[in-house]
Amino acid sequence: MDIRQTAQLARAASIRLAPETADRKNRAISDIAAALKRHADEIAAANQTDLIRAEEERLSAPLLKRLKFDTGKITEACAGLKSLVSLADPVGVTLQATELDRGLELYKVSCPIGVVGVVFESRPDALVQISSLCLKSGNAVLLKGGSEAAETNRILARIISEATRQAGMPENWLALLESRSEVAAMLDLDDAIDLIIPRGSNEFVRHIMENTHIAVLGHADGICHVYVDSKADLDMALRICVDSKCQYVAVCNAAETLLVHRLVAEEFLPRIQTALEKKGVELRGCEKTRQIIGIKPASDEDWQTEYLDLIMAVKVVESLEEGIDHINRYGSGHTDVIVTADHARGKKFMDCVDSAGVFSNCSSRFSDGYRYGLGAEVGISTNKIHARGPVGLEGLVIYKWRLFGNGHIVADYAGAGAKAFSHRKIPPLQG
Amino acid sequence: MDIRQTAQLARAASIRLAPETADRKNRAISDIAAALKRHADEIAAANQTDLIRAEEERLSAPLLKRLKFDTGKITEACAGLKSLVSLADPVGVTLQATELDRGLELYKVSCPIGVVGVVFESRPDALVQISSLCLKSGNAVLLKGGSEAAETNRILARIISEATRQAGMPENWLALLESRSEVAAMLDLDDAIDLIIPRGSNEFVRHIMENTHIAVLGHADGICHVYVDSKADLDMALRICVDSKCQYVAVCNAAETLLVHRLVAEEFLPRIQTALEKKGVELRGCEKTRQIIGIKPASDEDWQTEYLDLIMAVKVVESLEEGIDHINRYGSGHTDVIVTADHARGKKFMDCVDSAGVFSNCSSRFSDGYRYGLGAEVGISTNKIHARGPVGLEGLVIYKWRLFGNGHIVADYAGAGAKAFSHRKIPPLQG
Repeated sequence: MDIRQTAQLARAASIRLAPETADRKNRAISDIAAALKRHADEIAAANQTDLIRAEEERLSAPLLKRLKFDTGKITEACAGLKSLVSLADPVGVTLQATELDRGLELYKVSCPIGVVGVVFESRPDALVQISSLCLKSGNAVLLKGGSEAAETNRILARIISEATRQAGMPENWLALLESRSEVAAMLDLDDAIDLIIPRGSNEFVRHIMENTHIAVLGHADGICHVYVDSKADLDMALRICVDSKCQYVAVCNAAETLLVHRLVAEEFLPRIQTALEKKGVELRGCEKTRQIIGIKPASDEDWQTEYLDLIMAVKVVESLEEGIDHINRYGSGHTDVIVTADHARGKKFMDCVDSAGVFSNCSSRFSDGYRYGLGAEVGISTNKIHARGPVGLEGLVIYKWRLFGNGHIVADYAGAGAKAFSHRKIPPLQG
Repeated sequence: MDIRQTAQLARAASIRLAPETADRKNRAISDIAAALKRHADEIAAANQTDLIRAEEERLSAPLLKRLKFDTGKITEACAGLKSLVSLADPVGVTLQATELDRGLELYKVSCPIGVVGVVFESRPDALVQISSLCLKSGNAVLLKGGSEAAETNRILARIISEATRQAGMPENWLALLESRSEVAAMLDLDDAIDLIIPRGSNEFVRHIMENTHIAVLGHADGICHVYVDSKADLDMALRICVDSKCQYVAVCNAAETLLVHRLVAEEFLPRIQTALEKKGVELRGCEKTRQIIGIKPASDEDWQTEYLDLIMAVKVVESLEEGIDHINRYGSGHTDVIVTADHARGKKFMDCVDSAGVFSNCSSRFSDGYRYGLGAEVGISTNKIHARGPVGLEGLVIYKWRLFGNGHIVADYAGAGAKAFSHRKIPPLQG
């Protein structure tokens, strides 16, 4: 079966999934958890096959670790499914309700998007998480995981499909793609796929974004900044810089560039140098920085690099405005932090920095669906439309306009003697 | 100045526009209205130049009518601006507020999208309407109007820029593009433009959608259906069909295809034939239809054609499900209507038809921002993400996550002795 047919079956399934009730979807998600536990041995065996091949192919230790899907991971995945069941149904929420005239009532009601394509790298837990998020939000999903995890992904997809089929969900709501050529073909299916979510490296996400006209939800770079203002509490700034840079360097919400207002640079830079170098961080600075502390020079390239490593670029800025301009020019619109004790300056930064997350006096590392309390994260978006920042279930729904009349026609509201619209707020739609 | 520079200036202006207050933006919009009235003679003269050239170039009468921008049109435009001032500010609305921990507060707050590119055909009133919608929502805008209206658009853009500059709005928030090559160049500026809104013919919108990686808000086709169910009140169905087809044929929310359940086909088809033919509508039918009424045959092409004319395709379906399938296959996701007295069948149609507007027992012609009470319409979207159906000001905003801490770092919430998140709902952000 080619990918177009697969996508068409998924679209047909998405139509049947749309009216499913929260109870039935939740029961199906619970059944996935039960099935994963029941088939734990088979999953472990399939994962073992992947691990052996990966070792033969000399995958790096961190990648091997991500690939591993053992009993502990199954237990974690099941806990995730349980917490997903406890979240409110994102579908069927009345967002707006207006009486247009007597007996003519308009409801803007949330509904699934339709068919979502998700491409993710090695971690097999992502397959369980993403497919269950799609099911909860009533979407069909085409999934492509890393080829290293082929056996694990195959058995997980089979178990999930089978468990949900037995729970009465439509067949074909979940399809696993197995080759890169299928991903390439998927990117062309504007008419069958409504949203693509790529999860992986910068290059990978950028490649997807540049090769499809389908809407893409995600982020390529995470070039996050910490700006230490002239009015900053420097002890606080120190803690926040160290945490933003070092608490976990290999992730998109780690800080890459430190901006320091010139009025506090002489005092702050030697202190942050000591603190960061103690953590093994290499600093690269602008000219003004290097007049104060002895570090390597930063090039223009540094301002636009996501190191994902123990390296930080440092720049002295003349003003809050220069800091904002630098971030809007070189940043990636992910998450940026100001440290300041001055409320008005903090507000200006948060108003004018054009990023998904604008933080005052706290670490960039808080930019995360779990920490935000979203319950489950589809991904982090640096898009400017639909959904921005950490995206939970609400990023997988859109709305439709439901209009109920009783024979109402527009001719009665036009021309001489036209009836008037009432446009009166009414209570949400029930049932 | 090339288009990239223009877009960069617009982006810089959008950053300065983002923190503007509702009062100041509203005052600027009122000042636009005053300036249009003050410069009415100049506008009329410029429009006269366009009209004379258009007549020489033998533009059709409807196009000439759309091009005309006289005192009456200025008065209308000013009334539109006045009503825009009265709408609530879409920027700065707290959509969600959560305490993550004591003193660590997260707010999801609406904000402008940034830079919007709008390409519209001849009507100069669209320039006033779109630019003021962008200003109200805090967005910078690059505008390209029809070349027939070049002189009118130029003077309108100059008056609006000048009036808003005097009202203290940032310069360069509005730029007028003058050539097709500038539009082509704009479509490549993924990094400088956040959203494209094309308003015009199918071919035109489709061309834009296929030639940019920037998000596009709009609709190409409007292939709307009326489905007359087995449980329909046939008198009501008759009224709704005639209104949906004939009340104004040349618009996207007019119906193009009539679907009739076989159980009512014998009774309904002769009646609707009489009614529609009296209005001058040509009917084209499927085989089953033609066994009941003598009309031309419909081809597969007819099911996917937006006539925008006095033509309607007619098909007899065996079931509600066949009707839904037909709409999801051939429709454009714009607006589709069921006529039925059976609530459960109506609900199934509205759940399963994957369109922006799903209507029960009323005309497709209600699908419109003004009738919905949105106040002002940016356009109608058949997208599946961001905004769907008639889109008002809320389609021109997104949100950012504002997180306020007091030195909070993630290290305190990780590992042994980790602090817990409270994730408690709190009141919206003030000021």
